[in-house]
Amino acid sequence: MSVALQLQDQLVAWRRDFHQFAEPGWTEFRTTSAIITVLRDLGWDTVYGPELHDADARLGVPGADVLGAERERAVSQGADPELVEAMGDGFTGVLGVLETGRPGPVVCFRFDIDSNDLVELADDSHRPFLEGFTSVNEGAMHGCGHDGHAAIGLGLATTLTKLQDELGGTVKIIFQPAEEGVRGAHSIVAAGWFDDVDLFVATHLMANGEKGAIVTGADGYLASTKFDVTFTGVGSHAGGDPEKGKNALLAAASATLNLHAIPRHSAGASRINVGTFHAGEGRNVVPRTATLRVETRGESSEINEFMFDRAQDVIAGAATMYGVEYEVTVVGKADQESPSPELLPNIRDSFLGVHGVSAISDTSGIGGSEDATAMMKRVKERGGLATYVQIGMDTSWGHHTERFDVDEDMLAVGVEAETKIALGAGEFLAGR
Amino acid sequence: MSVALQLQDQLVAWRRDFHQFAEPGWTEFRTTSAIITVLRDLGWDTVYGPELHDADARLGVPGADVLGAERERAVSQGADPELVEAMGDGFTGVLGVLETGRPGPVVCFRFDIDSNDLVELADDSHRPFLEGFTSVNEGAMHGCGHDGHAAIGLGLATTLTKLQDELGGTVKIIFQPAEEGVRGAHSIVAAGWFDDVDLFVATHLMANGEKGAIVTGADGYLASTKFDVTFTGVGSHAGGDPEKGKNALLAAASATLNLHAIPRHSAGASRINVGTFHAGEGRNVVPRTATLRVETRGESSEINEFMFDRAQDVIAGAATMYGVEYEVTVVGKADQESPSPELLPNIRDSFLGVHGVSAISDTSGIGGSEDATAMMKRVKERGGLATYVQIGMDTSWGHHTERFDVDEDMLAVGVEAETKIALGAGEFLAGR
Amino acid sequence: MSVALQLQDQLVAWRRDFHQFAEPGWTEFRTTSAIITVLRDLGWDTVYGPELHDADARLGVPGADVLGAERERAVSQGADPELVEAMGDGFTGVLGVLETGRPGPVVCFRFDIDSNDLVELADDSHRPFLEGFTSVNEGAMHGCGHDGHAAIGLGLATTLTKLQDELGGTVKIIFQPAEEGVRGAHSIVAAGWFDDVDLFVATHLMANGEKGAIVTGADGYLASTKFDVTFTGVGSHAGGDPEKGKNALLAAASATLNLHAIPRHSAGASRINVGTFHAGEGRNVVPRTATLRVETRGESSEINEFMFDRAQDVIAGAATMYGVEYEVTVVGKADQESPSPELLPNIRDSFLGVHGVSAISDTSGIGGSEDATAMMKRVKERGGLATYVQIGMDTSWGHHTERFDVDEDMLAVGVEAETKIALGAGEFLAGR
Amino acid sequence: MSVALQLQDQLVAWRRDFHQFAEPGWTEFRTTSAIITVLRDLGWDTVYGPELHDADARLGVPGADVLGAERERAVSQGADPELVEAMGDGFTGVLGVLETGRPGPVVCFRFDIDSNDLVELADDSHRPFLEGFTSVNEGAMHGCGHDGHAAIGLGLATTLTKLQDELGGTVKIIFQPAEEGVRGAHSIVAAGWFDDVDLFVATHLMANGEKGAIVTGADGYLASTKFDVTFTGVGSHAGGDPEKGKNALLAAASATLNLHAIPRHSAGASRINVGTFHAGEGRNVVPRTATLRVETRGESSEINEFMFDRAQDVIAGAATMYGVEYEVTVVGKADQESPSPELLPNIRDSFLGVHGVSAISDTSGIGGSEDATAMMKRVKERGGLATYVQIGMDTSWGHHTERFDVDEDMLAVGVEAETKIALGAGEFLAGR
Repeated sequence: MSVALQLQDQLVAWRRDFHQFAEPGWTEFRTTSAIITVLRDLGWDTVYGPELHDADARLGVPGADVLGAERERAVSQGADPELVEAMGDGFTGVLGVLETGRPGPVVCFRFDIDSNDLVELADDSHRPFLEGFTSVNEGAMHGCGHDGHAAIGLGLATTLTKLQDELGGTVKIIFQPAEEGVRGAHSIVAAGWFDDVDLFVATHLMANGEKGAIVTGADGYLASTKFDVTFTGVGSHAGGDPEKGKNALLAAASATLNLHAIPRHSAGASRINVGTFHAGEGRNVVPRTATLRVETRGESSEINEFMFDRAQDVIAGAATMYGVEYEVTVVGKADQESPSPELLPNIRDSFLGVHGVSAISDTSGIGGSEDATAMMKRVKERGGLATYVQIGMDTSWGHHTERFDVDEDMLAVGVEAETKIALGAGEFLAGR
Repeated sequence: MSVALQLQDQLVAWRRDFHQFAEPGWTEFRTTSAIITVLRDLGWDTVYGPELHDADARLGVPGADVLGAERERAVSQGADPELVEAMGDGFTGVLGVLETGRPGPVVCFRFDIDSNDLVELADDSHRPFLEGFTSVNEGAMHGCGHDGHAAIGLGLATTLTKLQDELGGTVKIIFQPAEEGVRGAHSIVAAGWFDDVDLFVATHLMANGEKGAIVTGADGYLASTKFDVTFTGVGSHAGGDPEKGKNALLAAASATLNLHAIPRHSAGASRINVGTFHAGEGRNVVPRTATLRVETRGESSEINEFMFDRAQDVIAGAATMYGVEYEVTVVGKADQESPSPELLPNIRDSFLGVHGVSAISDTSGIGGSEDATAMMKRVKERGGLATYVQIGMDTSWGHHTERFDVDEDMLAVGVEAETKIALGAGEFLAGR
Repeated sequence: MSVALQLQDQLVAWRRDFHQFAEPGWTEFRTTSAIITVLRDLGWDTVYGPELHDADARLGVPGADVLGAERERAVSQGADPELVEAMGDGFTGVLGVLETGRPGPVVCFRFDIDSNDLVELADDSHRPFLEGFTSVNEGAMHGCGHDGHAAIGLGLATTLTKLQDELGGTVKIIFQPAEEGVRGAHSIVAAGWFDDVDLFVATHLMANGEKGAIVTGADGYLASTKFDVTFTGVGSHAGGDPEKGKNALLAAASATLNLHAIPRHSAGASRINVGTFHAGEGRNVVPRTATLRVETRGESSEINEFMFDRAQDVIAGAATMYGVEYEVTVVGKADQESPSPELLPNIRDSFLGVHGVSAISDTSGIGGSEDATAMMKRVKERGGLATYVQIGMDTSWGHHTERFDVDEDMLAVGVEAETKIALGAGEFLAGR
Repeated sequence: MSVALQLQDQLVAWRRDFHQFAEPGWTEFRTTSAIITVLRDLGWDTVYGPELHDADARLGVPGADVLGAERERAVSQGADPELVEAMGDGFTGVLGVLETGRPGPVVCFRFDIDSNDLVELADDSHRPFLEGFTSVNEGAMHGCGHDGHAAIGLGLATTLTKLQDELGGTVKIIFQPAEEGVRGAHSIVAAGWFDDVDLFVATHLMANGEKGAIVTGADGYLASTKFDVTFTGVGSHAGGDPEKGKNALLAAASATLNLHAIPRHSAGASRINVGTFHAGEGRNVVPRTATLRVETRGESSEINEFMFDRAQDVIAGAATMYGVEYEVTVVGKADQESPSPELLPNIRDSFLGVHGVSAISDTSGIGGSEDATAMMKRVKERGGLATYVQIGMDTSWGHHTERFDVDEDMLAVGVEAETKIALGAGEFLAGR
């Protein structure tokens, strides 16, 4: 039995614990606390709190009231109060570091740890409900598998600790907050923690319908920018003084239509979505405020920038039209970044023969967006190799649905293959 | 000292009690209960509950959950549980009837009793706060003076009871629910309670800056229709499957712009306002739902109907554009109706010489909308006379603001003048 | 028989001549030439050409190519080449001045002389066709009665010449170009020709269905601004390079919708109309150019300014939205201006007893726009009195239709009454 | 010297003749007449006039007045009057057929013959001007190389006639009208002329910057639909009766914005363009009519259909919004269709060794749209093989520009290689 398979019960226990205490982006206080505790017990160095992030580069952090409430809840749910205190205003996530003291490359693995804004299904057809580990945090649910990712990360730390005599160089495992909304990677990259990485692997459990089907270099993540727009005008009585108002709702409606009319791009796929629109104070009042939540995407970062730049023109123009003020706040950002092709054979070799792997391919089609691309980009810029691995699951549910569940058989697959990647990295990189 | 002035302390006490326990439209359970109790003590007949309304003609009634919670609160705040029970699902308001048994006309007075959706100012500059009678019901506040109207109505009932030997015919006093949003009058009219009225007077305290200035025939209330629009489409992932969505938000945005582009009307003033717009489920989801709260107005009922009819075309067209379903729900409606000119001299005579009256004029400019017009319309259709009286107050605040307050000196003015109207109605009508 | 009736054949001859050689605004070369010739023959002083206008204040003058072609045509149709030359680039119109040398007021009458852009009906039901004087200038037709106005003006000059011994002071008769599109009055006013006027009367034959019904003080002309908007973007192949275009057509479409969504004004009637929209170079090209012809109106000049100012915001915003350039050119402008009430009894007296007058009223309802208001405004500013007279005709056709025709019986009515106004002006003004 | 090169002078003469007498789609009366004459002289059968087309399937045919004028011009420019008569109302184009009487496949070549709507450059830098063969037909110019295509087609007919003893089966050469706007292919396909074709080759001279670079299987033509939209409402005076109008211009503006807001498609590139917008009768009239020229495109026919279907919803909805009528007329249509991969090696072999060929590749990127795809589709449906060949030219100008010119060296390249295709077709197809 492999080292990873021996961990199976522990992997499941970790994953279900994270599942039960699901925490949204930038509020993973209890989750981070639990991970730090395990890493410390294994003897790893840990970097967390403000040290982990470039504070100015953080995106989409909730307000102080939300953070305060979430900190309290985390402590009430068993988080270490001292660690929670250290995480301050949402400096969640942790980087585990294992320095072998021997020569060798810096190998880094990334696992994201935040939950989704979903109300979990309470129904016997849903295993977490049937077996009693559905989320106790109303409106927060692990609907994308990040609970499983965190468990794989801890499993990987455990096996590498056991096998550390066979390792050289340095292993870094980053447990990243706030991947949902592509918010959490940037400030960690900006703080410099990826500047010395030679080989980087991000991991995602994928509900793609094929149990054990591995993608060694998932490509086609769209570059994306997430931003909020607020229009502020002047209210007035719609019956008595319609001409005195400056109508923020109409500015937002006009912006919305014209945002969707931004032209297609001949160089590849583009996207725009005004996902939510909230405006107005009352039926008989000329609306004073309006807020939009928007995202642009592009098959390349250039296309996404084209969409974003044009969107800024549209928004500025809509504000001018109605004489209202506006503010745009970027709350998330993902680049497009492709895996290093020369790394993929090595990844393929590492998954080959792992118990539970049913198929291996090198690429995948266009999908959503991912901020691990920011890490990949930095690693590649500095001359390292990077990829994004997907581990297939055969499920009847999709990501971001109320009935999403992780195929726990796949946890050990990730641990075992990525242990092999870490162990073989020195030889592979030396042989290039 | 006039009969009315002797009542001053009682008028203030009633008004402040209603103020403190402010109840929004269709949930005036405690207010109605208190009024019924007074009327019964005076020996008046009372009509309330489902008997008062044509159930099918009610507009803008809240959902069962809201009504249930409000009923419970009313009882906890001292309402008679039996009366509250009798009011069922929002059949609030009460008609008091004094039959003299002697020949004479049916004279009817109308007072509205519901509160506004406002958070009352908590500040020593605001007398209700300073003197301890601000609303204890969060989010509900008497910001339009209906607390004072209800007090005048009870004062009028009291004086007429005392002076009933001088009266002939029948006096009706209607304490109307849900005037805000112009919702409450229609179902009472539809139930027939105005079919026999010979002379009708509606009353409003008016923060027009002139203490004691009376308008005997306030005109220029705009006809209006209040309605909600819901668009329902199909959600999809904005990055992965944009073409699978049916975008309710875009339908609503397109409807909004084109609603505001409905042409002006050459016959007089028109208005339209999309007051609130709420749509979408998340930034990266093609929006499935959108809800608008809209109102149209017109200087005549015909102009308002023109606006409303064109609005239906726009909404239907927007739904067709985006392949989404839609539903329009009318939640309020006011006609334009002018006072009977031949009644105004009589009203003027009744206010002449009343202590506190500083000026009397016959008409006023265009303002908001009022559903007392539905009562006026019915009375006039049946050959009766009708008017709408305003009693001026010199205030530094406007209606529907968090610092609105009633000038309590004006309560007795209303009681005294309207007592004279009731007493003189027989002679006046006979002399026409 | 009155002096005016003796002129009947001449009035008809003048009117039909102008009708046959209809000339649009700023190209009334032949019409002006003919009028100057008559005035000179009567011994009047004439002011025309650049002297008549403040060149910088002219609005909506056609391009040099149009003016050149129209000058040539005028000469070919009998205009005096020297006079046409003197009118240069569209300095049409003429002011006739009769100085009596005796003390007395300056009395001024205004008649407009330009035609409409219409193709005249060629059908025996249309008298000008039946009797052979339809317009020979394709696309130009007197569809508003200005041919009749010019004839009245010449008739008035003729009678006043005959009666000049009874006159004091100065009489001015202004034959104004380019009233259609409210373009021609401003530059004449700006040149100072109205600065000394004590009494001013503008005249219009009105197809209001009542033959001989006079309005002494037509009111309710809406203030208005006429302007053209041009958007200029960047073209590109719509299939190959959609992102390279800057779409002027979409900017114009967005401007159009939002222009019509400018709010109503509580102080009175407002209007906006995007009357024409021409954009684009070809089906498969991202459109580079778009042109709109727009007008705003208001019941007061302030309301019209509100509409115009808001429109500028909308247009600027639309250009910003699409990254295109834009240009707004004001091509016409009318103020709202009311008649002087103290003048109306005098006008009434002058029409009383005139043969053909069937009724006299003092005011009229809201209608279109008129640039005679600019003259009225200047006269009133300087302390003079001003009004706008309408002479009713019972017709089955409306103004600005292809079958419009003047009721020639009304020409003498205008001449006779206005002769009386001129003769009585000194006494009337002295008696105030 | 190859048979083709011997023809060089003739090829140039034909091409320049067609260039000088450029004729737009469906009006190629003179061009067709000239081609028929050559084919007859060579002894080929010819199919033309109504026999060539399924009349009901023709798209985008001009009106009778245009056709009449163009027929007259053609005759005045030397067309055979009898042939022009036979082409009736725009039944232009001709199919040349060479029946060998021997067994063998049906091989078909397609050349398009219509010109573009361009004003040709009159400047010595433009060879057609310098050498005196610019278009004499104002506004019509061969700006896409169809003059060269027609010349290649006649050259091919000439060489095949000479070499007919070496041929088996049947050769068809279709000279197609109205390729611009993708209008002309459908009615010929619908008439059944492609039902028996075993091997099909369409040919295009391509200003791709590489002289002699051949693409054997040009792919990536976008499916496209071209359509006109007319909205018809009700006019009214914008100042006097704005509410009486039904505003076609606003319907069109609203449609335009929402057409551009049709969502992107996840399966590939999509396009939409409202290329022209003409609406309104005058500045002060509520606009009664509006006309849009629109096109949709898609990387697949399914995507184009998605765009077209959604566009119909938008247009219908816009009409409903404003209470106006509308009509959609499809005036052009192109499918996406890929070359038969198994045919490409044969095409490659045929171009190999031809004088002037510098490079050969098998595919090309996404570009515009082509209605030869309709022919390819039918041939493939019936089991035949089809491709689209591009012959590269090194030019400083692009297609559809006023300075486009054909590299006449490439004419013989097409003739020679396609002669080889025809000669080898029997053996190639037999050997599959």
